[in-house]
Amino acid sequence: MKFTYEAIGVIKSSFNEKFGTPRQPHLNPDSRGEIHLNPRLNPEQSLKGLEEFSHLWVLFHFHLNRSSGFKASIHPPRLNGKKTGVFSTRSPHRANPIGLSVVKIERIENGIIYVSSLDLVDGTPIIDIKPYIPSADRVDHAEGAWTDQIDDQQLQVNLSSFPEIPGNPSKEEAERLKALFTRTIELDPRALPYKGDRENPHPYGNRYAILVEDYNVVFQLEGTQAQIIEISQGYKKPQKN
Amino acid sequence: MKFTYEAIGVIKSSFNEKFGTPRQPHLNPDSRGEIHLNPRLNPEQSLKGLEEFSHLWVLFHFHLNRSSGFKASIHPPRLNGKKTGVFSTRSPHRANPIGLSVVKIERIENGIIYVSSLDLVDGTPIIDIKPYIPSADRVDHAEGAWTDQIDDQQLQVNLSSFPEIPGNPSKEEAERLKALFTRTIELDPRALPYKGDRENPHPYGNRYAILVEDYNVVFQLEGTQAQIIEISQGYKKPQKN
Repeated sequence: MKFTYEAIGVIKSSFNEKFGTPRQPHLNPDSRGEIHLNPRLNPEQSLKGLEEFSHLWVLFHFHLNRSSGFKASIHPPRLNGKKTGVFSTRSPHRANPIGLSVVKIERIENGIIYVSSLDLVDGTPIIDIKPYIPSADRVDHAEGAWTDQIDDQQLQVNLSSFPEIPGNPSKEEAERLKALFTRTIELDPRALPYKGDRENPHPYGNRYAILVEDYNVVFQLEGTQAQIIEISQGYKKPQKN
Repeated sequence: MKFTYEAIGVIKSSFNEKFGTPRQPHLNPDSRGEIHLNPRLNPEQSLKGLEEFSHLWVLFHFHLNRSSGFKASIHPPRLNGKKTGVFSTRSPHRANPIGLSVVKIERIENGIIYVSSLDLVDGTPIIDIKPYIPSADRVDHAEGAWTDQIDDQQLQVNLSSFPEIPGNPSKEEAERLKALFTRTIELDPRALPYKGDRENPHPYGNRYAILVEDYNVVFQLEGTQAQIIEISQGYKKPQKN
């Protein structure tokens, strides 16, 4: 049985590429996004009442998956190389590449939903949005198996020598960007092959660059210690939020 | 942009038809279901590790919707006739008829997931399942607008004259069925037009029947007081759970 759905809209996000996009939305609260609905869905009407909710479910299509057929077992990045069944994970590489994330609603204006604390890559097609209903969706005694034990902070960023953020941001905005860049790196955006091993800790070099909003942030790793060495601007049209 | 997904499986559920199926899964904890995956997905492998989680997200297709085009504003059954934007509700009648419910995992055996506390109609096609990850999905300070105020118990069932449940169930099973039938009625399964008004409280009569598991449960209403007057069996193959 097959079902065809049309995207209801698209998200603009702080994260310009998979590299640097967090694995779960709550991990980087200073990230921002805008959900733009298809005008045929009459956003001014169809979003009415949504601003009274604090959070939103976003159902989306993992559009950056490279197709590789269905794999019943996978290696989740946080399970240290152990294999598990794909349906016991939130991996993008599943039978139907549908993602599910709860994001924070900041405000709704002119049919655009401004959100924060997200894990979606810029340009991700949205297939549904639904209000987060605490009485139904917040399961107080749920047990999350190995996900209950994860330490998400994998790297430490040297905050004492943080480069200046170009573009003359306000003090508040500079603080947000600093937190956003720091958190993006702390979560260790590297895929498994880039992490190397004890003998060869940096098989592809120890310099990395993340593209966040319109910034290119270059950092260098020594073990789990990260040093941001350059921040430049102009990589993407700035997002107003 | 269009996306085509193939059902990953189907659910067998306590609820044989829309009438009587709760509006949210937590509302009727004594309901039961079985999720049967398509064998091509290798359930024995792809479900590995899932039994360590207590709850499961089910993404499904609302297959019983009668098509009627997209409506930007709707009348949710619990909003007393008030209109609101469709994307501020969990209504099945949305741009893409995708449902999202968290259910409790009872056990997994031979590639079948036995679940409880659900709101899916028997035969609903499943398009994805994901573990409930408390650190990501349980938003402690979420605000649910009008849904925070809902009193789900709409009717009162007279428990002092409850008919005998046929089929000679064990004491424990009889207690479960009694709770399941009672809760199904308490939630008031009637659609708005059947509720009438002060002058004409029962425009279609005051007797109703719900089909739950293999039972037909007939009840009668006086105002908000319900009396179960007959329970008969044999309407559906019993579900083993």
